[in-house]
Amino acid sequence: MMEKAAPLRLNGRIWIELDSGRLLGPGRVELLERIKASGSIRQAALQMEMSYKQAWDLVNDMNDRFDTPVVISHRGGKGGGSAVVTEKGLKAIEQYHILDASFKRFLEENHKNIDL
Amino acid sequence: MMEKAAPLRLNGRIWIELDSGRLLGPGRVELLERIKASGSIRQAALQMEMSYKQAWDLVNDMNDRFDTPVVISHRGGKGGGSAVVTEKGLKAIEQYHILDASFKRFLEENHKNIDL
Repeated sequence: MMEKAAPLRLNGRIWIELDSGRLLGPGRVELLERIKASGSIRQAALQMEMSYKQAWDLVNDMNDRFDTPVVISHRGGKGGGSAVVTEKGLKAIEQYHILDASFKRFLEENHKNIDL
Repeated sequence: MMEKAAPLRLNGRIWIELDSGRLLGPGRVELLERIKASGSIRQAALQMEMSYKQAWDLVNDMNDRFDTPVVISHRGGKGGGSAVVTEKGLKAIEQYHILDASFKRFLEENHKNIDL
C-alpha cells in the first residue's frame, strides 16, 4: 500500500542514431569518457564490467559509422596498448551531454503534467 | 561510404515509473489500446506477438501498481473471457500520448543542435 502513495515520475533516455541504428547513447558516451580518462580500452571495459571484445566492438562500430574515428588505438606493447579519444570523440561526448541536459529539463518540466 | 553522408538523428523513449521501476511505456500503452479495441487480453497479446502469460503479467503489474486497476477482466466462458480498460486506464493512455507528443517536439527541436 505504501507504494501506491509513491509519486509517479517521468523518465527516459535519448540517443543519436543513423538509419542503420543507434550510434551514441549513454553507454557509449560512458565508454568514451572512461577511455579518455584511462587511456585504455581494456581499463574502460573492466570499469564498465563489459568484455574487452564488447568494448572493441562498440569502438569499431562508432569508428566505422561516424565520418571520422572517435578513438585511435595503438595495440600491443608493454602494458597492452593505449587508446586516445579524438577531437571528434570529444565533440560527441560534449554534444551528447548538452542534449541530455536539455532532456533532463524536459523531463522535469513535463513531470508536473502527470496526473494519474 | 554512403552511410557516412547520412544525417544523424536524435531519438529516444520516455516512460512513467515508480521507485520500483517502469510502470508505463510505449509497449504497455499499445497493449492497453489493443485490449480496449479488441475487448480481449488474448487478442491483444496475439496482435503484439507476445504470450498470453506475458500480457497478463503486464496487466497484473499495472493493476497492482497504479492506485486503481487499469484493466478489469472476466475470465473464462465461451470465447475465453473479456477485458475492459477502466477510466484510469483510458486516462493513462491519454496522458502518455500527450507526454509523448511533447517529447517528439523536443526531439525535433533539439535535432538541429547536433553537429557531428
